[in-house]
Amino acid sequence: MDIFDNINPMDFRYYGRNPDLFSKLQPYLSESATIRYMARVELALVNALARRKICSKDDLKEIITAIEKVRAGNVYEEEDRIKHNVRALVNLIRKNVSDRAKPFVHFTATSHDIICTADALRLKEVSEKVVLPLMKTLMVDLIDLAMKEKDTVQIGRTHGQHADPITFGFTMTEYVSRLGRRILRVKHAAGNFRGKLSGAVGAYNAQSLFFDDPMKFEKEVLRDLGLKPSTHSTQIVEPEFVLDYLHAIISTFGILANMADDLRHLQRSEIAEISEAFAKKQVGSSTMPHKRNPINFENVKSMWKAYMPRMTTQYMDQISEHQRDLTNSASQRYVPETIAALCSVMMRLDKAIKNLVVDKENLRKNFNITKDMIAAEPLYILLASYNHPDAHEKVRELTLLAEKSGNRLLDIAFRDDSLQPYFKKMTKRQQDILKNLEQYTGMASKKTEDCCKFWKKKLKL
Amino acid sequence: MDIFDNINPMDFRYYGRNPDLFSKLQPYLSESATIRYMARVELALVNALARRKICSKDDLKEIITAIEKVRAGNVYEEEDRIKHNVRALVNLIRKNVSDRAKPFVHFTATSHDIICTADALRLKEVSEKVVLPLMKTLMVDLIDLAMKEKDTVQIGRTHGQHADPITFGFTMTEYVSRLGRRILRVKHAAGNFRGKLSGAVGAYNAQSLFFDDPMKFEKEVLRDLGLKPSTHSTQIVEPEFVLDYLHAIISTFGILANMADDLRHLQRSEIAEISEAFAKKQVGSSTMPHKRNPINFENVKSMWKAYMPRMTTQYMDQISEHQRDLTNSASQRYVPETIAALCSVMMRLDKAIKNLVVDKENLRKNFNITKDMIAAEPLYILLASYNHPDAHEKVRELTLLAEKSGNRLLDIAFRDDSLQPYFKKMTKRQQDILKNLEQYTGMASKKTEDCCKFWKKKLKL
Amino acid sequence: MDIFDNINPMDFRYYGRNPDLFSKLQPYLSESATIRYMARVELALVNALARRKICSKDDLKEIITAIEKVRAGNVYEEEDRIKHNVRALVNLIRKNVSDRAKPFVHFTATSHDIICTADALRLKEVSEKVVLPLMKTLMVDLIDLAMKEKDTVQIGRTHGQHADPITFGFTMTEYVSRLGRRILRVKHAAGNFRGKLSGAVGAYNAQSLFFDDPMKFEKEVLRDLGLKPSTHSTQIVEPEFVLDYLHAIISTFGILANMADDLRHLQRSEIAEISEAFAKKQVGSSTMPHKRNPINFENVKSMWKAYMPRMTTQYMDQISEHQRDLTNSASQRYVPETIAALCSVMMRLDKAIKNLVVDKENLRKNFNITKDMIAAEPLYILLASYNHPDAHEKVRELTLLAEKSGNRLLDIAFRDDSLQPYFKKMTKRQQDILKNLEQYTGMASKKTEDCCKFWKKKLKL
Amino acid sequence: MDIFDNINPMDFRYYGRNPDLFSKLQPYLSESATIRYMARVELALVNALARRKICSKDDLKEIITAIEKVRAGNVYEEEDRIKHNVRALVNLIRKNVSDRAKPFVHFTATSHDIICTADALRLKEVSEKVVLPLMKTLMVDLIDLAMKEKDTVQIGRTHGQHADPITFGFTMTEYVSRLGRRILRVKHAAGNFRGKLSGAVGAYNAQSLFFDDPMKFEKEVLRDLGLKPSTHSTQIVEPEFVLDYLHAIISTFGILANMADDLRHLQRSEIAEISEAFAKKQVGSSTMPHKRNPINFENVKSMWKAYMPRMTTQYMDQISEHQRDLTNSASQRYVPETIAALCSVMMRLDKAIKNLVVDKENLRKNFNITKDMIAAEPLYILLASYNHPDAHEKVRELTLLAEKSGNRLLDIAFRDDSLQPYFKKMTKRQQDILKNLEQYTGMASKKTEDCCKFWKKKLKL
Repeated sequence: MDIFDNINPMDFRYYGRNPDLFSKLQPYLSESATIRYMARVELALVNALARRKICSKDDLKEIITAIEKVRAGNVYEEEDRIKHNVRALVNLIRKNVSDRAKPFVHFTATSHDIICTADALRLKEVSEKVVLPLMKTLMVDLIDLAMKEKDTVQIGRTHGQHADPITFGFTMTEYVSRLGRRILRVKHAAGNFRGKLSGAVGAYNAQSLFFDDPMKFEKEVLRDLGLKPSTHSTQIVEPEFVLDYLHAIISTFGILANMADDLRHLQRSEIAEISEAFAKKQVGSSTMPHKRNPINFENVKSMWKAYMPRMTTQYMDQISEHQRDLTNSASQRYVPETIAALCSVMMRLDKAIKNLVVDKENLRKNFNITKDMIAAEPLYILLASYNHPDAHEKVRELTLLAEKSGNRLLDIAFRDDSLQPYFKKMTKRQQDILKNLEQYTGMASKKTEDCCKFWKKKLKL
Repeated sequence: MDIFDNINPMDFRYYGRNPDLFSKLQPYLSESATIRYMARVELALVNALARRKICSKDDLKEIITAIEKVRAGNVYEEEDRIKHNVRALVNLIRKNVSDRAKPFVHFTATSHDIICTADALRLKEVSEKVVLPLMKTLMVDLIDLAMKEKDTVQIGRTHGQHADPITFGFTMTEYVSRLGRRILRVKHAAGNFRGKLSGAVGAYNAQSLFFDDPMKFEKEVLRDLGLKPSTHSTQIVEPEFVLDYLHAIISTFGILANMADDLRHLQRSEIAEISEAFAKKQVGSSTMPHKRNPINFENVKSMWKAYMPRMTTQYMDQISEHQRDLTNSASQRYVPETIAALCSVMMRLDKAIKNLVVDKENLRKNFNITKDMIAAEPLYILLASYNHPDAHEKVRELTLLAEKSGNRLLDIAFRDDSLQPYFKKMTKRQQDILKNLEQYTGMASKKTEDCCKFWKKKLKL
Repeated sequence: MDIFDNINPMDFRYYGRNPDLFSKLQPYLSESATIRYMARVELALVNALARRKICSKDDLKEIITAIEKVRAGNVYEEEDRIKHNVRALVNLIRKNVSDRAKPFVHFTATSHDIICTADALRLKEVSEKVVLPLMKTLMVDLIDLAMKEKDTVQIGRTHGQHADPITFGFTMTEYVSRLGRRILRVKHAAGNFRGKLSGAVGAYNAQSLFFDDPMKFEKEVLRDLGLKPSTHSTQIVEPEFVLDYLHAIISTFGILANMADDLRHLQRSEIAEISEAFAKKQVGSSTMPHKRNPINFENVKSMWKAYMPRMTTQYMDQISEHQRDLTNSASQRYVPETIAALCSVMMRLDKAIKNLVVDKENLRKNFNITKDMIAAEPLYILLASYNHPDAHEKVRELTLLAEKSGNRLLDIAFRDDSLQPYFKKMTKRQQDILKNLEQYTGMASKKTEDCCKFWKKKLKL
Repeated sequence: MDIFDNINPMDFRYYGRNPDLFSKLQPYLSESATIRYMARVELALVNALARRKICSKDDLKEIITAIEKVRAGNVYEEEDRIKHNVRALVNLIRKNVSDRAKPFVHFTATSHDIICTADALRLKEVSEKVVLPLMKTLMVDLIDLAMKEKDTVQIGRTHGQHADPITFGFTMTEYVSRLGRRILRVKHAAGNFRGKLSGAVGAYNAQSLFFDDPMKFEKEVLRDLGLKPSTHSTQIVEPEFVLDYLHAIISTFGILANMADDLRHLQRSEIAEISEAFAKKQVGSSTMPHKRNPINFENVKSMWKAYMPRMTTQYMDQISEHQRDLTNSASQRYVPETIAALCSVMMRLDKAIKNLVVDKENLRKNFNITKDMIAAEPLYILLASYNHPDAHEKVRELTLLAEKSGNRLLDIAFRDDSLQPYFKKMTKRQQDILKNLEQYTGMASKKTEDCCKFWKKKLKL
């Protein structure tokens, strides 16, 4: 199939044409990977049989060789014939072993013993090998940026309005902290996947025909794969392990979308405190050659809009009737795509963060716009603390007056007779801050340091 | 790319390996189709220029030839270089025309004049050529089934409990009626897509440099493509046209999911009133060779779970800041997939409906289980209508008595002295129905006929 | 119950403490309204019986009197006793009429004949009496604003970056157009609700015991209420009528959220082109007395986030097994709240629009920031049209040069030798626009006029 | 306000009219509770000031007295006047203390220091005092049921089709296991809420005017309330703490919905293995007095449909621009309702589980329907294990034959010459199971015991 015959943008565009992402994800999330992982589980099963001497070493060898020959295309052709995907795989393996070895392929297993365990395994491995490393790389680059800009004064914004001053490093530290916590959660969920070998309805019916201890045998097979069973299963593993994992994935996505939105807005023409780097041959717009658009930040937000709603599929897939209806069969096939999307977005965002252009002049310019009005907060708080009977209202009136007269709030305040007793009571540092608002950044710099240090240590970065 | 390197199941499985669906959808919904449609819009633009003699017929001819040479792969290569997809297309076309013709390629247009219009066009055409025909085919087969079974008595069910009798034809008529109404809605939405040629912010800024009547020119270009503009646009067409269309698509999906659920449950081992046909070589289960599973109905429900939540993406994409932020750029690339999913599901369901096995014996058997208790409703209603002072309570007590004693409700009722005066007042037909519950199907058969006739005529099937 | 014992913010805050909204909505959307509407349907049923002389005028009179006495509290008490809400209502009515009249209360009806019809009726009436009038009021105020500011130059923005110039009136016209179209859709959906009187499974079983023409009788009852039946029903009306209506409601909500977002961003400290009016005693922030926050615009967006996801409930409620499972019973009780939320938001937004402060000075200031760079677009387009072989690239280079040198783009361009031949070919108007970018607003003003005129006429405003 | 003037069903129906639920939840989730919790945080702040001797003990006493007088109604009246809810609370407190004590009310705090901390506190407490106890009660009753029925043979079902036998206890054990794991998650999330006292933008600007160690002071205040801060905050606490908690809540809801669906289907007329208990005066249907409907199970599923989609609101509320936009202000007010809904559903479900009617006769009857065909699985597996070259295909053919001839599968199999060598090789136990399928329940009973024991111990039930 021509790549451009595909319908899904991940396949024809974001993953399919990004060699770096492709080589990272293909071994875990592609359909060929699905088949390979299922074969690995079939292998683990035979391994355990050989260890218990239920089959011979020769049987095992034969089966290993047969499994290595399995190709996705062949499995699909067999499935076309018999309309059952796991049976197709089993047929292919059995076809290539002697009659003596045949019974030990898929021995006592039901399809979903293989599928659930294979899915758990590949989600675990893609997390360890790709997702978490990408999260950590992004984390390291965020920390670098935050530490580099920890003293760069920026006006803080709430309601889109200028509020108290902070530093740009502090701004980025928000994402250090939130992403750090998500790394812990993804790690926990990725380490908590479960497999199963409990048969068609979870009661080990078939297994019980041959084993006295089918639950122990299940543990042996799974241990080989680095997995364990849950306290109960039906035809399938309890859905909450994948659900919790995807919650960790989607909530990470949400943090990246928030960061992208923030940076996108900081790149607005009127604000322009930061911007994405711009390649030499890059075209900003087909008719406006001067445009520098935050296309990577926009992509991150847009991908979040495409993938976040898919959590709803997961919540619906919690419901499966009795020992399983199969209405989660197709829908669960879409799980890998969401993980691929997060990886795509992390690589993109990391590159943008690494090359972020910080415009210190504009940071200062914006800060100066409302610098004077910002004095309202410390002024009110200091007046109140020195027992002014109605500081909030007094300052509100002064700001209206300042606005009306065009004079600086503090000039008016310092000239206000009624306030003189209060100014006298203030400490030197308090007076200094009122006069020099750049110092009114509170603990922004220290918080940046503390938080970055904390997460670096916690995550061993 | 190997098809099994894909990550998305539509690409590697449902559409990508279904030659019938592939050939239907590739011309509209694949990425190559995207490029072809954009080229068609560029062509319509030059056509209109030639008609107004702004460019010459020779220019037009050159450009047509150049456009025919465009291939998705080349456009993507150029995009890799300059990071802008529409400009990439424009570059490719311009490269293959004389300097004289060059200016007329993409003349005064902005990228989204091309993209929005191309998207409108392909959604319109895939609807007319694929979606609506598939809906109608399914409709015809549903009507055939309903009419065939219009007199086949079935027990009606509410709360999963036996209620009043109906017919199986009446059961299927529910879907005739609901699907019929969706066809009207999809048709309406598909006929209501809008294009644009209003420039980078919707105010025809560039166009106004050359045309006195840019809004008229926009109409000319769009008319050629069978489209029209909305009353306003920004950089993009108002999102509600695609939104309403996808609401029509997703709400159609919901009806199919409901039908699939109903049939799935009717196939339960204990009910077994219908079943999917089963191919000769088909494997029911990898360990339970006797199983006949409703895999097609399960697939329909599962696909609905995968795609229904994507409406949330559309509702989020209604929001685009000012004359457009681009956070809907990636997310809107996923629209074709949802349409492909509905088509996949309709083809599958149609085949299942056409080959549906109706088990009349089981229908009768199930009806007989509660036949006697069902008499409670007409009994209560008739007693009430003949002025029994407390008919509902009386019948409730009789049913408890019947349950307890194991006697038939009506036997008990007919022997109850206090009820004799009421039985005497009943008409012959009323008494007959009480004695012969199979006749208590109300208007089920007539409703089936009326409804099927109505929709056949309305939709010219 | 104390209002502050409530848990839901609509009840204790947005609707419950807003006398204007409360008096508008209580008659349609409160639980007392639910009971009143059910009683109205019971009444319509008896009315039709009297018209057909199945019951006498005296029976009718008795029942009318009994229905008028029904109070929500009493119905709930009876429900507590018998655990069935419609039967509770029926009991209360029957208790207050003579034995002769009793049978005609709820005659042949099933609970959901009453509930579905009552719901259709109240949704229809709240739409006609409250929702559509509020939409139109907002529309009128938007049109007024757009027309007033149709010539006020504003810089257009895409990607949050300055793009081509427009006017503020044109900006608001986007919402005139989108909201106008939603009014049509809400109106259509509100005029398309359906009732039913087809009994427990939709086959008119009970009705058929007494009527030869139960479908005609159903139409008579519904016609009295201004409703009609669908082509099929089960125990319930097909869910798509309410679904389509809520799609219209939620997609309206999305447009308001977009408008609120736009205005919120235009109120940013650095942009400040508009702002919400600010009451005299209003407190902007508990510690920053000077803040003027866009709290109404924020509320609109936030309410959208609270209510938009509920469409998913509606899409799930499309699925109801067989002739109905009751898993949509509780969930459908939440429908009125979404309508109330939209009304709340429309009243709030309308007030904010009416009192919107437009800061012309800042509009001009912002426009001037990039005025020079904006010339890039017309320059490129004009050069291209006069056969410059590579206009886009040339202008891109000039903008980089302008940026680097600090000179104005057009100054550099006009001095560029290679461009002289092209400038000479330009018309006077083209040259004027290059020199005077305020004129480069395209059709912004005319589009505003046309669009406002169109919708005023279409909606008879 | 009359309770029936409310619009939201939780307020007027599920919580508002359920005295038991009302008394449990009102202290935490009502709007009066909101105010009380905010006052508690204001108090903790003053307490810490007094401990540091920044204010005197007399000041503290005055403020405590003033805080005790605060009523929701008064706060709302003040908010009506000044349009700011926290400032309204602060005004009320300050009004009732001496001028000397006034400055210490809300000292250096920003509104969201109070709101975020109050929310964290009440979510923590409602979890500890209501949510977790209700989960555990349900857990205990599920374990009782599972253990009681651990040996009651039930046919297992996959695809709605009879599969391998299990026991009804094993069926319920699925929910013991899944719910057990959710209890751990809710507990973890409930123990992980964070408060803040870091000021308007999270940088402790105001606090830094007075404290050298504002981060230490924050910890002191929070410790008093049993909370701690996160590694970073802006105007608000990082949204992921509430998000994770609600994921735990909603995923619990999903498990209950699954259980309700299972039980609902087991109550179908044709299956009837279990049923909800039915009150004496209860009305099943307004026209079908005999109906016994699974109304509680339906309610659980329906409530899940109403509340599950609200997770989307939470995922959207992860995004807040810069140091906070306020578009999460209204939407977060809806959080308590979702918790109330889960509690409502747990109480309802627990009652239904406690009174569940298990129909052993029907369990046996259903098992017998397909008992013979079920033998297919062990037969196939045993044949395969004894080296039958194509066991799966052979058994598939035998089942078709059995179906066709009406004979029992095993009778046919035991008479099949080609199979005799294999039967001879089987162990006695294997042969017994083939002849007595009731024994083919695998480890169902043991698994029930193990799993129930595990969770009882783990959760100290």
